[in-house]
Amino acid sequence: MSVPAAIRWERGGLWLLDQRKLPEEVVYEEQTSASMVAASIAGMKVRGAPAIGIAAAYGMALASRTGEDMARAARLLVAARPTAVNLAWAVNRVLRANDAVAEAEAIHREDAEMCRAIGEHGMELIEPETAVLTHCNAGALAVSSLGTATAPLYLAHEAGIRFRVFVDETRPLLQGARLTAWELVQSGIDVTLICDSMVSHLMSEGTIQSVIVGADRVTANGDVVNKIGTLGIAIASRYHGIPFHVALPSSTFDPDTKTGTDVEIEQRDASEVTGSIRAPRGVHVSNPAFDVTPAELVTSWITDRGLIENARDLAVLK
Amino acid sequence: MSVPAAIRWERGGLWLLDQRKLPEEVVYEEQTSASMVAASIAGMKVRGAPAIGIAAAYGMALASRTGEDMARAARLLVAARPTAVNLAWAVNRVLRANDAVAEAEAIHREDAEMCRAIGEHGMELIEPETAVLTHCNAGALAVSSLGTATAPLYLAHEAGIRFRVFVDETRPLLQGARLTAWELVQSGIDVTLICDSMVSHLMSEGTIQSVIVGADRVTANGDVVNKIGTLGIAIASRYHGIPFHVALPSSTFDPDTKTGTDVEIEQRDASEVTGSIRAPRGVHVSNPAFDVTPAELVTSWITDRGLIENARDLAVLK
Repeated sequence: MSVPAAIRWERGGLWLLDQRKLPEEVVYEEQTSASMVAASIAGMKVRGAPAIGIAAAYGMALASRTGEDMARAARLLVAARPTAVNLAWAVNRVLRANDAVAEAEAIHREDAEMCRAIGEHGMELIEPETAVLTHCNAGALAVSSLGTATAPLYLAHEAGIRFRVFVDETRPLLQGARLTAWELVQSGIDVTLICDSMVSHLMSEGTIQSVIVGADRVTANGDVVNKIGTLGIAIASRYHGIPFHVALPSSTFDPDTKTGTDVEIEQRDASEVTGSIRAPRGVHVSNPAFDVTPAELVTSWITDRGLIENARDLAVLK
Repeated sequence: MSVPAAIRWERGGLWLLDQRKLPEEVVYEEQTSASMVAASIAGMKVRGAPAIGIAAAYGMALASRTGEDMARAARLLVAARPTAVNLAWAVNRVLRANDAVAEAEAIHREDAEMCRAIGEHGMELIEPETAVLTHCNAGALAVSSLGTATAPLYLAHEAGIRFRVFVDETRPLLQGARLTAWELVQSGIDVTLICDSMVSHLMSEGTIQSVIVGADRVTANGDVVNKIGTLGIAIASRYHGIPFHVALPSSTFDPDTKTGTDVEIEQRDASEVTGSIRAPRGVHVSNPAFDVTPAELVTSWITDRGLIENARDLAVLK
């Protein structure tokens, strides 16, 4: 498997793969301050909840080495993206540590171990000769390695299981087309790109047998806050009797938030929608970045602690 | 109200709105011969089955006025889009008529009356202070006037009812963003553009209260063959308890086809998906153009003969 890392911490320097330039260009940009990392997170050069957390942790590490005000660096980084719970978690963990660099490295290493654990628990869900749908990018590019939703796919592929993956393009920012399709193609997995609007049709004709998506946050009751479009896929899965699995590291579980409807959904700029297509002047645009999938639509939560099939068992994650 | 016309027949001249240039440019191109009309149809300056039929009928009218060979004009026009049933129907109707101009005008007028009838029957479904979702372009640009799915919207707006419309962009060819959003903005209706993947979220937060879509074909049992993405909207509507209405002229009802699953779904070129976005080399693409919405998901069929709420009553259309 040959998937480039989203985040490189080498010789005390931090490099982020500018994911906005994929799949055409593979460019690593050196980060020289916490505020630069915060800007990279806000600008989505690095994205995906765990990767954002790791990048922010290293942002704190950079701040500690350059003598920046740590409290101010923490505020900047936490404010970069409002929805990702990992961001505040990682920043606060480094803020409390004696050695910021060692703590950021530990967060990074633990994340890689978590991805592998998710993959090992989830790979039993990949039946030979089936097709799995995934959405957005909860892949290697979003995490430290293997990804979350993609970890079962990578390990099943490594084990020689034959299966196909469908990836929807994930408008407006096309993370499915640009990132997930790209990293799966790199790794030799059989992957087919579809538009977001084609999911139900492919399910109705029996082409897709299961779904695995990632999560930005899973609330106490098991609701899944994830990239816009996830809810529609979950509803279509239920209608067609197709299992809908959510892969998440323990850190994504948020027992302090009761349900997904308590989570504020980020409204992003209209130009993300209109910028890449031809739209008329004078049209309003709504651009919610996430949606909430009710726990009742989830078949299993694939975690580093194992498969969880009942929302009340999510408590083991904390 | 200024609903833009796709086709203008004025002072014995024919003008077609070049829909390929929308929404950036509004250019009416005068057509001076049947062969020019045929080229405009083939080049998709005019699209939508009813609009193509009307344009071809006027192409025949032009031929009769300039003394062109009528049989040759008919052959050219019918060959412009060989799969469009309305095209041959309209051309043959003018060819058999004594007065080509009067017959073309009759076809145009009947289509406009059909749109208005759909609108009059459907406008009762538009509740004040609600938001209606539509998909793709079953609008004025595809027909003679008012459109099919949009006819209830235009008449409700004309009647002073306050409501909003959400239009999804309709990947891969973006008819929702380029055409429907544009024509609704022109007419002064409050319209908001969203990505296809955002529909379920907006329903879940209570923003959308009803759906009206068009249809390419409605089979004997009420199944709806329409632009890819329609099925997903119908399933999401059912999950959220939102009415899902289908607007169609009687001519779209096909009692000779039992169910939607008997209809072959056209697979279109992969470049429609990858051409307008950034996709990695080596990825497969699936690009079905239509999907089938089971009759059980339809709240009402809005027709020129009235609202139909039970699939077995569709028989009145034939």
